[in-house]
Amino acid sequence: MSLRYLSAKLAQQIDEELMSTTGAFSLDQLMELAGLACAQTLATVYKKETHPRVLVCCGPGNQGGDGLVAARHLGMFGYSPVIWMPKPGSKEIYQRLQSQCVNMKIPVIAPSQEIDPLRDALARSDVILDAIFGFSFKPPVRSPFDAALPLLSASKLPIVSVDIPSGWDVEKGNEAGVGLNPDVLVSLTAPKEGSKEFNGRHFLGGRFVTKAMEEKFHLNLPEYPGFAQVVELNPSNQSTGKL
Amino acid sequence: MSLRYLSAKLAQQIDEELMSTTGAFSLDQLMELAGLACAQTLATVYKKETHPRVLVCCGPGNQGGDGLVAARHLGMFGYSPVIWMPKPGSKEIYQRLQSQCVNMKIPVIAPSQEIDPLRDALARSDVILDAIFGFSFKPPVRSPFDAALPLLSASKLPIVSVDIPSGWDVEKGNEAGVGLNPDVLVSLTAPKEGSKEFNGRHFLGGRFVTKAMEEKFHLNLPEYPGFAQVVELNPSNQSTGKL
Repeated sequence: MSLRYLSAKLAQQIDEELMSTTGAFSLDQLMELAGLACAQTLATVYKKETHPRVLVCCGPGNQGGDGLVAARHLGMFGYSPVIWMPKPGSKEIYQRLQSQCVNMKIPVIAPSQEIDPLRDALARSDVILDAIFGFSFKPPVRSPFDAALPLLSASKLPIVSVDIPSGWDVEKGNEAGVGLNPDVLVSLTAPKEGSKEFNGRHFLGGRFVTKAMEEKFHLNLPEYPGFAQVVELNPSNQSTGKL
Repeated sequence: MSLRYLSAKLAQQIDEELMSTTGAFSLDQLMELAGLACAQTLATVYKKETHPRVLVCCGPGNQGGDGLVAARHLGMFGYSPVIWMPKPGSKEIYQRLQSQCVNMKIPVIAPSQEIDPLRDALARSDVILDAIFGFSFKPPVRSPFDAALPLLSASKLPIVSVDIPSGWDVEKGNEAGVGLNPDVLVSLTAPKEGSKEFNGRHFLGGRFVTKAMEEKFHLNLPEYPGFAQVVELNPSNQSTGKL
């Protein structure tokens, strides 16, 4: 039985079920574990000795919240993250997560439609964590992200994308050609259909899906190693080793 | 500068500050990370191949909540936890955390003042996670915990205690002699004064304390390794290796 790749609709359904009265998870819990998984993935592939400066790019939705949590954990791990979040989400949780980063003295670039601050930040970064768009993304890419994606690509910095590379259609992948080409992808809960064509290092996070839920949705998840929050999906394809 | 051991009052103050408007953490977040740290500690010392059956003993307060989170993560790690929580806390969060365990088919012993169910469960366990009393514990030990503590000790099973061994005074340790004698202790945020006399394997969890807070309270925390959620405080005293 092979790993199931999720449609946008199914990903949404699983997310809702996790947070339903039945699933009983709070958004705070799921985001904490998802963001920790993202931070662990980045830290597995890019060591802080060689890639200390992480530009964490956050979208306005829950994906951006995962990015804020990841930024905090990366700071705890000894990295020097900087947050670019041009359109902060309105949910109260984003403000709390951002305050937690500010308390750690993680710089947050002032929200703006201007793209220059991003350009400047890229020049001072070693690796990008792309938490811009998630599984609820629908094209087209709107301002200022339409200008940001080409800039991120042009930087030639390594990119770690969360759940689905930003700009990709959740189901059809990068057929429009406007999306990022990340080196690393960390899928959350289960990979999305659009990521089938991704051929970099692919990790899975979201170690909170119960066996019952895995069976109900025929997810066929791989086994996570030890007490890690992430598992690499295709480590045998890689020359640089696994977790 | 050596690690600071906290009074009950100071531990309370740090906890409140973490969850204040300034600290911006939610109880959900802190409990998730604390419980994960407890699960990682147990899994570091007692492997699932030799100690698969974990009896998670939960008190009625936040400490019990940490235990519920730890039980879930232990289940995710491949252990077979069983929860003994004779007096479930009334806070809504405990009900959610318990539902998450039930969804994972983790058995929860029916709440009761009777001690027999605990005795039966002990006979089918390999290791105990003691999440009964935390830093807000004040003697005396009340029923049914007054009968439970001697039973846990008499079982001769290895015990991993959370924050302060149950029955110990948070500041004065086990001077009354009614407390557990755990093999492993996982202190959260910073160790408590009463744990100074503890001489088993001692871990620290709570990788969410900012540098600013660490300095404000003169905590002198050790560095956590890699992306672990726990650090062993005295690994050089141990023959069985570190993380």
